[in-house]
Amino acid sequence: MSTQESDASGNSTWTTPGKYVEPGSDFVRDTNYIETRITRDGSDGYPVEPGRYRLVVARACPWANRTIIVRRLLGLEDAISMGLCGPTHDADSWTFDLDPGGVDPVLQIPRIKDAYLARFPDYEKGITVPAMVDVPTGQVVTNNFPQITIDFSTEWTEYHRDGAPALYPEHLRAEIDEVNHGVFTEINNGVYRCGFAGSQQSYERAYARLFTHLDVISERLSRQRYLVGDTITEADVRLFTTLARFDPVYHGHFKCNRSKLSEMPVLWAYARDLYQTPGFGDTTDFTQIKQHYYMVHTDINPTGIVPQGPDLSGWNTPHHREELGGRPFGDGTPPPPPPAAEQVSPRDAAPVAADPL
Amino acid sequence: MSTQESDASGNSTWTTPGKYVEPGSDFVRDTNYIETRITRDGSDGYPVEPGRYRLVVARACPWANRTIIVRRLLGLEDAISMGLCGPTHDADSWTFDLDPGGVDPVLQIPRIKDAYLARFPDYEKGITVPAMVDVPTGQVVTNNFPQITIDFSTEWTEYHRDGAPALYPEHLRAEIDEVNHGVFTEINNGVYRCGFAGSQQSYERAYARLFTHLDVISERLSRQRYLVGDTITEADVRLFTTLARFDPVYHGHFKCNRSKLSEMPVLWAYARDLYQTPGFGDTTDFTQIKQHYYMVHTDINPTGIVPQGPDLSGWNTPHHREELGGRPFGDGTPPPPPPAAEQVSPRDAAPVAADPL
Repeated sequence: MSTQESDASGNSTWTTPGKYVEPGSDFVRDTNYIETRITRDGSDGYPVEPGRYRLVVARACPWANRTIIVRRLLGLEDAISMGLCGPTHDADSWTFDLDPGGVDPVLQIPRIKDAYLARFPDYEKGITVPAMVDVPTGQVVTNNFPQITIDFSTEWTEYHRDGAPALYPEHLRAEIDEVNHGVFTEINNGVYRCGFAGSQQSYERAYARLFTHLDVISERLSRQRYLVGDTITEADVRLFTTLARFDPVYHGHFKCNRSKLSEMPVLWAYARDLYQTPGFGDTTDFTQIKQHYYMVHTDINPTGIVPQGPDLSGWNTPHHREELGGRPFGDGTPPPPPPAAEQVSPRDAAPVAADPL
Repeated sequence: MSTQESDASGNSTWTTPGKYVEPGSDFVRDTNYIETRITRDGSDGYPVEPGRYRLVVARACPWANRTIIVRRLLGLEDAISMGLCGPTHDADSWTFDLDPGGVDPVLQIPRIKDAYLARFPDYEKGITVPAMVDVPTGQVVTNNFPQITIDFSTEWTEYHRDGAPALYPEHLRAEIDEVNHGVFTEINNGVYRCGFAGSQQSYERAYARLFTHLDVISERLSRQRYLVGDTITEADVRLFTTLARFDPVYHGHFKCNRSKLSEMPVLWAYARDLYQTPGFGDTTDFTQIKQHYYMVHTDINPTGIVPQGPDLSGWNTPHHREELGGRPFGDGTPPPPPPAAEQVSPRDAAPVAADPL
């Protein structure tokens, strides 16, 4: 299976609190990962096995948010438990500060770094989420996020819920991979290239690339409801988590400000359509998203002040994308509501739109 | 004549490059000015006299932009010359870095600070624009910006152009003063209170005050074309210069981000109406505005990177405010185009809207 983002998929920006901009330089994402895989055949030493692994995430992180969405769409909650880091870092990266006593109740550790060190005592690469942890040994198996969601779709099939959608169907993989590549280099990572640019020239190049590709994707989505085929796929998941962060964070904090998402009609309707689909909006925590970026990146927001805006009430307004056809879950069905323990507080989600009269 | 803003009208934030936020504190505007006035009767030692004074401004600065607009609406260009500082500061505050040799061609000084020191050798208050300078002595007469525009209207009447509007008419002064007071404390200065807040709590209070008053003003302007009476007055000038900076700067840089101006329909149409009126848009330099804030406030934007956005093409689209009635210049007429030497480059203004088909 291809790892579509292997050219530039690192995530070390989440690991060095406060220092993200390299003066004079373009932002370059670290691409070093633990690439061990959890597979049906256990060829890397980690076989698929329900209850054995814990997915450690932070709701704030777009790369982790992908895994939360896919786990939920596929109904893997019972097979793979989930640990939630808080939105901000300390000097040792992500911590379980939201949990009672600041300790993950399953792994019994205060910080995800401990699981990295359990696997590699001299681990020097990025301490990132999402991470799949082997519960019996307390060791991180992998933090290779683009592979994690693909493996959820293709290796964990035995444990998918009834009605789970085909997010990475065989006959569409080439097209999904191609779309994902452009979305990753130009958009998912493109917003970071704007925000962490080390010079005016670097920023301006990054800005042009970002909006050029957003226009390309907008044109594509003006004709079809989803990015590939006529159902939700892995490609939509990957684009969604960046779009959800666009107005709350990237527009202001990363200076991606030609326009807001809410001013790009096609992308805004597309994003709302997904947001209102079970699995997407109900895993999106706008409060944690804003806290993460504005409090952690102290070199671009030294005051640490988190904006009150934007008004998010538009997220639940009608999108009319169903007029383009499409079958969100294909031959499958939407997932049921998330388990109580995994629900995003209504306070942290978009307000429900007023009833239209 | 009342100085409507004497309670909180200082401007020292323009004088200390890089240091604007006081951790833990609210932003408090310095209110110390040189309050000498230029009057018809010369009671302060500075009589109205054409050709004697030079108005020193920076197009970036909202307080200075007011004086540029009023001077132009009243046709005072021949009576009061204008010196233009560049958009950014050095350690000595505003400089004439846009002029050949970096020296103002009339005052023959490289920085406005020199004119302050010429008047008061031990001057320790804010070095600000706008400043009225007595050309023969090279001394600053006043930098008391709310009074400068009022005096343009009321003391320089002999030199107004034919058809100059009544921006501060006797019978409306009480209402103009009252509106100006709220606009100043809640909006003009309110955006700074958000941007330079020294704590999350201070910011959140400031944000609530700002948007509360924007809603009040929006409600008022939903029923009438201009703030006071049915013509443009001093009150509109004072609100306009803040609205023009809202999306390019205050929304992102100062975290005034409940919504963009372009998402507040009444205020956006009102602002476009003024922008498209001679004297307003043709004195607004969006490039210098963005450069000033993003490059000078290094404690909230340490990288100094200036955003490429927002897309400004909306400024020249139809606003339909004429449907509310109103006579922009009352019994007067619009000013002719600005002299060539005082024109804002088209590059730095909003793009002309495409012809509607």
